[in-house]
Amino acid sequence: MKKIRLLTPGPTAIPEQVLSKFAEPVIHHRTSLFEAKFKQLQDHLKWLFQTRQEVLTLTCTGTGAMESAVANLFSPGDEVIVANIGKFGERWTKIAKTYQLQVHEILVERGHALSLSVLESKLKECPNAKAVLFQASETSTGALNPVKGIVELCKKNGLLSVCDGITAVGILDLPMDEWGIDVLITGSQKALMLPPGLAFIALSDRAWSNAEKSKCPKFYFDLLREKKMQEKQQTAWTPGISLIQGGVESLGMLREEGLPAIFKRHEVLARCTRSAAEALGLELFSSAPSPVLTTVKVPTRFSVDEGKKIQKIMQEKYGVIITGGQDELQGRILRLSHFGYCDVFDVATGIGALELALNDLAYPVEFGKGVGAVLKAFHQA
Amino acid sequence: MKKIRLLTPGPTAIPEQVLSKFAEPVIHHRTSLFEAKFKQLQDHLKWLFQTRQEVLTLTCTGTGAMESAVANLFSPGDEVIVANIGKFGERWTKIAKTYQLQVHEILVERGHALSLSVLESKLKECPNAKAVLFQASETSTGALNPVKGIVELCKKNGLLSVCDGITAVGILDLPMDEWGIDVLITGSQKALMLPPGLAFIALSDRAWSNAEKSKCPKFYFDLLREKKMQEKQQTAWTPGISLIQGGVESLGMLREEGLPAIFKRHEVLARCTRSAAEALGLELFSSAPSPVLTTVKVPTRFSVDEGKKIQKIMQEKYGVIITGGQDELQGRILRLSHFGYCDVFDVATGIGALELALNDLAYPVEFGKGVGAVLKAFHQA
Repeated sequence: MKKIRLLTPGPTAIPEQVLSKFAEPVIHHRTSLFEAKFKQLQDHLKWLFQTRQEVLTLTCTGTGAMESAVANLFSPGDEVIVANIGKFGERWTKIAKTYQLQVHEILVERGHALSLSVLESKLKECPNAKAVLFQASETSTGALNPVKGIVELCKKNGLLSVCDGITAVGILDLPMDEWGIDVLITGSQKALMLPPGLAFIALSDRAWSNAEKSKCPKFYFDLLREKKMQEKQQTAWTPGISLIQGGVESLGMLREEGLPAIFKRHEVLARCTRSAAEALGLELFSSAPSPVLTTVKVPTRFSVDEGKKIQKIMQEKYGVIITGGQDELQGRILRLSHFGYCDVFDVATGIGALELALNDLAYPVEFGKGVGAVLKAFHQA
Repeated sequence: MKKIRLLTPGPTAIPEQVLSKFAEPVIHHRTSLFEAKFKQLQDHLKWLFQTRQEVLTLTCTGTGAMESAVANLFSPGDEVIVANIGKFGERWTKIAKTYQLQVHEILVERGHALSLSVLESKLKECPNAKAVLFQASETSTGALNPVKGIVELCKKNGLLSVCDGITAVGILDLPMDEWGIDVLITGSQKALMLPPGLAFIALSDRAWSNAEKSKCPKFYFDLLREKKMQEKQQTAWTPGISLIQGGVESLGMLREEGLPAIFKRHEVLARCTRSAAEALGLELFSSAPSPVLTTVKVPTRFSVDEGKKIQKIMQEKYGVIITGGQDELQGRILRLSHFGYCDVFDVATGIGALELALNDLAYPVEFGKGVGAVLKAFHQA
């Protein structure tokens, strides 16, 4: 018997009580029954985003919502600043260029966060830029951006702050209205503990007024049309109904836990993972480690191929699925995710599998040292 | 106890053995386990589309796939002909205009199909048109287009045939390669007996070579990128994994039934429904009735409000959800769908509820006359 455990940055594990909801018949979306369910989801989402704005539900994955932000807020030729601190930052650039925006990119060395002083200089260099596009937490490197500072600089300089919170909302505190985030995005398969297939996006009043002037083509991702419909508990197009039904359940669970407890849980799990890494002699990859996932460097004694093997052994021999580096980081880092339906014993299991896999590759491991560090850090928190 | 029964044009009822699949854990998409599952789905889809082309899986609903066809095949300024025989035909026009295509629309009176001679004249009038965009079966009116004839005219005149088969693939015979359909589209919540959230699209070689020249902006819906990934059993973006898992099951069921039996079943169910309508004195709305759904006129003795009430009573009192007319057809027609996970007893149940609802509104009904006609037509087939 080999149990499969997901310690990946999405899809994450789904609670049994949510999974069982998907075995229920799908309700028709043009009925009052659906509208009542959707209203519940909408209320939960506003709570999760900490906003009074409509949080729109789109039937697509996170990238679709990122594209919708670009296509709805801007027009060809508009200038934007992108914080490219990793693969997902780079995606902002690609999307913006697709719509013929003029992109001023801040390319940050992998593993680091955006520096506020660098952003400040860039803002001076680009007086015509309309927005800063960035990630809250960059999943490809495990770096956490200083969201509050970025948003403040945007406000001070009259730019829109467009935040990809796909692996951040419901994990770390991003009070949209209080901080003044103009666009906030997440996806169903992350902290929301659902399968992939839905994305969520909320816009500030300022962002909505930009949407009215945008000249980029969009139809399926037309947010103004969606807003009009979703204010009446309907969607412009047939939505991912089963995920909406499951979402009422999973968001209900999160709401019962409460935002402060959720943020605390993730902070503690991150601390546990970092302690374990240290105990196993593994160096952190990111200089600004995120509470979402912890990236560690593959020890230098291993080749790139051996680096990939650690993850492969964990998956194939021990059933614990983590992710390695992408693109140029392949075989050089390990990414241990600790969010969503995840507690201290899931983290301990992941570290246990890591100990076994490292030992299989003749890395000197004192069994239990990493797991012990997890438990100790948990106990102290 | 009130059982809910969906006799709607999507979402349709989902088989219990498919629903139970959704209660299983979601597999991670960047694993060989997923790739093996996805390969099965791809094989099933090629069988369903009757094509040797890749059938791409997109995480969106049908409208997203329609948009992807426009955004990937054309460039701003390109001329296209749209067969607007209903609300979904009109949608082609709206999408094409969004991307600044020049649209030559054939506006057909609601209830009728596109006439091939009208199309032939339009083709002569518009020598620069690059494609004809049309529906196989128009869900808003229940009219069936002469797909084979449309495709032949397109071929003869060197135009691409872009067929929205969202409520047609897996219901009626649309052999993509044999007929030479250039683009064929469907969605998960139709004949595929799945919840909404996935759409499927296949392109002919000729359509693919158009895609290489297209200048419309697209990112999430970039089909060339998807093709490159899906040829390796991967997707460009995180896909709707749970629906893919369920799709292997539901398409497996369809494949066991076999295409000839599937097409026969729908043809028979349509005949049963039309017989029942006749027996109840209800006039067909469409002059080209589709095997997908049967539209009947609300008897003239009823006002528009009473017309809407028939559907409301069926739903609220008897738990049978059918759809009425949309937009200008509200309260004027009833749409009885008979596709997907649907057999003769489902049709008989729908007709039974219709008899009861009509009687509730003081329409003279001899109970069992409609249901009897269903059974008789079934017996004769």
